[in-house]
Order: sequence, then structure tokens, then C-alpha cells
Amino acid sequence: MTASPAPEGIVTAALLVIGDEILSGRTKDKNIGYIADHLTAIGIQLKEVRVVPDEEAEIVAAVNALRHRYNYVFTTGGIGPTHDDITADSVAKAFGVGIDVDERALAPMKAHFERRGVELTPARLRMARIPFGAELVENSISVAPGFKLGNVIVMAGIPSIMAVMLEAATKFLQTGKKMLSEGIELHRPEGEIAHAFAEHQKKYPGVSMGSYPFSRDGKPGTQLVLRSTEPDLLAQATAELKAICTANGWL
Amino acid sequence: MTASPAPEGIVTAALLVIGDEILSGRTKDKNIGYIADHLTAIGIQLKEVRVVPDEEAEIVAAVNALRHRYNYVFTTGGIGPTHDDITADSVAKAFGVGIDVDERALAPMKAHFERRGVELTPARLRMARIPFGAELVENSISVAPGFKLGNVIVMAGIPSIMAVMLEAATKFLQTGKKMLSEGIELHRPEGEIAHAFAEHQKKYPGVSMGSYPFSRDGKPGTQLVLRSTEPDLLAQATAELKAICTANGWL
Repeated sequence: MTASPAPEGIVTAALLVIGDEILSGRTKDKNIGYIADHLTAIGIQLKEVRVVPDEEAEIVAAVNALRHRYNYVFTTGGIGPTHDDITADSVAKAFGVGIDVDERALAPMKAHFERRGVELTPARLRMARIPFGAELVENSISVAPGFKLGNVIVMAGIPSIMAVMLEAATKFLQTGKKMLSEGIELHRPEGEIAHAFAEHQKKYPGVSMGSYPFSRDGKPGTQLVLRSTEPDLLAQATAELKAICTANGWL
Repeated sequence: MTASPAPEGIVTAALLVIGDEILSGRTKDKNIGYIADHLTAIGIQLKEVRVVPDEEAEIVAAVNALRHRYNYVFTTGGIGPTHDDITADSVAKAFGVGIDVDERALAPMKAHFERRGVELTPARLRMARIPFGAELVENSISVAPGFKLGNVIVMAGIPSIMAVMLEAATKFLQTGKKMLSEGIELHRPEGEIAHAFAEHQKKYPGVSMGSYPFSRDGKPGTQLVLRSTEPDLLAQATAELKAICTANGWL
């Protein structure tokens, strides 16, 4: 993966998952966690996720709400050949631009289908419809591309195809400071360590601290997580918290 | 599960997932799919999901945007004993009501902790803070309850505890017509059936039709899904589509 680093500052993103099948429960989303991991790894902070149905008004409203608020908006789903695939048209509408079959998308699709003896039906042609002004995002699996229009990156919903598109889109992205994290696992329940942990958070406002309870072999435990874009600050806050935990017999 | 059926009409819901750990990728959400399945089964249509960070302003804004738009809003996460658990306070703020330790929540928690010889720390006491006017949602696993304030149902983020709370909350819910669905699995790629499928959708505007490609043993297939609250209409549209698929040699 390659990405242009923006030397300072924070870069934010939202994810818009488009699909009735996620909301009905028929399909279980696997993209949110994958995209969250990828963005964290390259220095983009995922700040919001929305899941909306295959309805144009909902997609347009969500794209417009999110693209003005975050540096990037990623979408998944709704770019196939069937009538319920309305993402490309909806994103064009959100930006107020036209959309038509794009030669850059069509040529490789034609070649791909010819090689496989597959007919280029009008339905398949729909997958070459790209909003005016968009850059293509390569699909190395099934050729029909995603695209980037302004700060909105449109990807497939099928996890394997989404993954290659996300990789391909990364070269278009400005990235910021990486959010680094450290974890401390305690074999004590949250309720015991909460006071000391809250005091520690107060002392380090530049480090975001969260606490996640778990149960293992019937015994309660707590994962403390510290997050910051500043490596030295994070190391100091983590070392000090470990010392507090050790002194209290929690580690 | 028991739920009061609303004899006619559609009941809608949104889900608000609260937690930095989902957005960073550290924790992979398992609640969206579970809640989607449960709501579909009891006759509530999940229309939107949002994931927001552990930030009061974000939670308040999302709760207020969603609660005016849908019949119910379910939230998961942020009701534990640590400083980053701010859901109860944020929901109280969204409704403009006060919040304090609630005797109905505290009494069973006291008894539970006493039985186990666990100290009722100030942090644990926080879990008994319930907004004024809320009803409690029972937690049969770890006692600290969720609650229902107006049309907002606040639940834990840990999947097992969320599940018992969702079950307990169901008795408070009005439900509507169940969204029924039928699937037809074809061993043909989407692009071949798209035209006939779109024509069929036009003929049955009261049935929502979606198409989901898959790959099995290296061969492409398509799952056609038909959804409607009207059983007779759904049966008719499904039978007719099967006949079309058979006639075309797709089944």
C-alpha cells in the first residue's frame, strides 16, 4: 500500500454502508471492521459509520451530510448490474453532476468479458456508468471499477472486491498522523480500577483512554486501551499506568 | 419473547452503536447483525444504523436526529462503570432530563454485589445512574440494567448482555407488520438475469427485490431476494419469478 502522508494534522473519514440486506440481517457486514483497521493503519481516523437502505434519497442525504464533515467518505455496496444498485447514480446526484458510461471503465470490461466469452448485456454496461469528473478505482478481481468523486470513494460491497478497491484507492488519499494504541490487560473487573483509570485520564487529556471488560474461564478481566497520535506521550502515559496497576496488584 | 403487535402499519427503528473501539477496528461489532435479525423477526424494520465515538456531542446529536425520525432507537455500548461510559448521561441530555442513581437499579445491584463479596465502588454506583422518567431494562447476566427513555432503548455493548437486554426490552415494544422474505438461488451471474429481474420489480412495486452475487467452487451465482409485508403478494411475485427463471434455464 502507498499513501501520500500529510506531514501534520489529523485526517478523518466516514463510512457509508449501503444495502437493505445489512439492515434486514440477511447479510452480516464484514466491511466495517476491515475498513476501520485499514484506515487506522494508514493514518486516517474513522469517525462515523452509517448504514442506509437502497433508497436514493437516503443515500444522497447521507453522502452530503458526511462529505462536508469529514476529509473522506467511503461507501460500500450498490454498484452491481441490477436495478437495486443505485449508488453511482445517487452519488452523482449528491454532487449535482451527470453520469454516463465511461470509456475508461468500459474498455477493460469489454476485454475482460470477451476473453471469457461473456455477453456485455445492458445490465453489465450499467457497471461502467461513472459520474462525470470521477477518477476510477481499480477492481483487480472482476474489473468493473469503483470510483473517487471529490472526497467520496465508492467501492463494492462484496468483501474481497471491496478489499482490492480499498487498496487501489489508498494511493489517492492524503493521510495524517497515525493513531497509535497500547493495551494493558488486567485480571480484575472494571469496577475496581475505574477510579484510578479516570484520574489517569484527567492527567493525560491528550491520550484517549477506554476500558473494555471481558470474561475468560469465568473470571472477569479488563482491557485498558490508550490511544494517541503522539508516541512519546503515549509511551509515558502507558508506563505510568502500568506502574499504578502493578502497585495496586492488578497486573 | 413477547411483544405487543400493532395490528396495522409499519414500525421502524434505528440502531446507534456507541464506541471508539468499533471505529478504531480494535473491536469488531457483532451487535448490528444480531439486532437486525431480532427486529426483522418481531416485525420492526431497521432503517438506519450509525456508529459514533464516545463523545457526548456526537451521541446527543445522533440520538436526537434518530429518535424524531423512527419509532424506536436502540443504542449499544457505553453503560459500564468507567469514565468513557457516557451513554446514560448523553441520552439524558438529549432528552433534556436529569439523571441520578436510581433506587430500582441500585437495590438489585447491591444485593448482587453483596452475594459475591464485591465492593460497591463509586464507579459501580455509576451503573445505577438512570435518566429521570426511564423504565429499566433487565440485565439477567450482570444485573446493572439498561433503560428505555421515551422511544430510546439503551443497552450494553457486550454481545451476551446486549442479547438479554434486547429480549427484556421486547415487551415494551409495539411491533408492526413483519417483513417477510423469499430467496431464489441461481447458478448464473447477476449480469444475465438483471434485465428480467428489473422488469419483474417494475411489475411488483409492493415487493422489494434485491440481488446478491456470490461465488461457489469458482462459479458465479446470484441470490434473488424478494421482501414484502404482504404474504399473498410475496408468494405470487416469487412463484412468477421462479417460473421466469425456469423458462430461461437459470434454475
